[in-house]
Amino acid sequence: MDKETLLANPVGFDALLGLELLECTEELVSARLAVRDELRQPFGLVHGGVFASIAETLASVGTAVVVVPEGSAAMGISNQTSFLRPISAGTIHARALRRHRGRTTWIWDVEISDDEGRTCALTRMTIAVRPIRGPAPPGGS
Amino acid sequence: MDKETLLANPVGFDALLGLELLECTEELVSARLAVRDELRQPFGLVHGGVFASIAETLASVGTAVVVVPEGSAAMGISNQTSFLRPISAGTIHARALRRHRGRTTWIWDVEISDDEGRTCALTRMTIAVRPIRGPAPPGGS
Amino acid sequence: MDKETLLANPVGFDALLGLELLECTEELVSARLAVRDELRQPFGLVHGGVFASIAETLASVGTAVVVVPEGSAAMGISNQTSFLRPISAGTIHARALRRHRGRTTWIWDVEISDDEGRTCALTRMTIAVRPIRGPAPPGGS
Amino acid sequence: MDKETLLANPVGFDALLGLELLECTEELVSARLAVRDELRQPFGLVHGGVFASIAETLASVGTAVVVVPEGSAAMGISNQTSFLRPISAGTIHARALRRHRGRTTWIWDVEISDDEGRTCALTRMTIAVRPIRGPAPPGGS
Repeated sequence: MDKETLLANPVGFDALLGLELLECTEELVSARLAVRDELRQPFGLVHGGVFASIAETLASVGTAVVVVPEGSAAMGISNQTSFLRPISAGTIHARALRRHRGRTTWIWDVEISDDEGRTCALTRMTIAVRPIRGPAPPGGS
Repeated sequence: MDKETLLANPVGFDALLGLELLECTEELVSARLAVRDELRQPFGLVHGGVFASIAETLASVGTAVVVVPEGSAAMGISNQTSFLRPISAGTIHARALRRHRGRTTWIWDVEISDDEGRTCALTRMTIAVRPIRGPAPPGGS
Repeated sequence: MDKETLLANPVGFDALLGLELLECTEELVSARLAVRDELRQPFGLVHGGVFASIAETLASVGTAVVVVPEGSAAMGISNQTSFLRPISAGTIHARALRRHRGRTTWIWDVEISDDEGRTCALTRMTIAVRPIRGPAPPGGS
Repeated sequence: MDKETLLANPVGFDALLGLELLECTEELVSARLAVRDELRQPFGLVHGGVFASIAETLASVGTAVVVVPEGSAAMGISNQTSFLRPISAGTIHARALRRHRGRTTWIWDVEISDDEGRTCALTRMTIAVRPIRGPAPPGGS
């Protein structure tokens, strides 16, 4: 996984969401996503899973760009998302800050905010870092 | 929100995911989702946000079909998803069981499994139940 | 509940722990606790429940000193504690920062650190704020 | 750590709590604890940290009795406790069920109930299993 490729060309679920990665350093990853009908739940608000998904991507990418070149894989262990305030229009802004870089576990705090800068969701992501054994794809626990 | 409509015609983010609701009683909601490239992260596994999103929908729908006819709204407070085992192909199976029905808070446990019946993710969803005041849309805390 | 009394004279479980509250403003509560054998698990480290308990107290007190005088009760909804690094000696330092003050839900982030200032545990506490009806004690959901 | 010793003689924080371990198999650990003033918060209810602490002990012990004889250590990664209903008197009953036994991560669901059998708290505990390298004590991440 190459950092520039990752940032420039979201694939798979990130592309389905329409996520736009903005910045990716060792300790901060940011992204944005314009609200559209396809991201809403039946009451017209952005679906909570969208917030959880953005947080998952940011923390995973932020960990992977560091550990994959070192021969390890980054796998989400847990995603704890708290919902504070709904978003129904405009742009979703997301910022992930690394809180802990352990040998086997990284922790990121992700904040989702709206166009007025109000915090709308908070995610604590725990990412496992595991050596990749041989040519097998990462995954599992 | 009408239960049959909800079950038959997913809209918005649920439609984008391709989620198929199978069953919805007061204490159990189930669904499935076929794996496709658009649901994957860059390493080829189903994106963790997909699991969190399915859980969010199941718990929200299971609460809403009961409380909306009573004049209340159901809003996610927190989504705690633990990832146990990746899914890379086949069908994602999800089952939400209600664990608590409080006056203001409902709790659901959602289990995601693969075609072999192995548990792949566990979500604890906390849903707030709030009276709807006037014609305003639900949301916020 | 009077703020000065609360701060000066821990009672019940806080007294059993030996918790010393240091500071309590609307957005920050801090405390410390000297490690002793009674706080350890069988392997000699401070028991994880001690960290979770300190966080629970700080967030609850920080919310209660504001909402109780307004006629509401503060009740913990969830305590999500992540363990980063063990503490085996010295003093446990805790700082709770308020992240969200909603109408019905408050969220606090609590950081536990050791004498070297290293982060050892992170807790996200969600506290429900509910009007007290009549003379009944707070509690329930 | 010997299983019978662990069960018969709680030490450290478990002894301070007064926790009585009742049963410990590979997939189930149970315990009880009589409510007393020292376990209460200022409003007279059992302190939420007590529930989180009991859950932490049960999941840690249940993992340790299996992995320690195999040369590994069991360390809590996260404790997610949801509070459903307060307990103010009687006995606290706790049951931990193993939900996942991975190579590096175990997950336990702990249920706390009161004398009437009502669920009062639910904890999802994630425990890391790590090989012990040399004579060093377990801990850290």
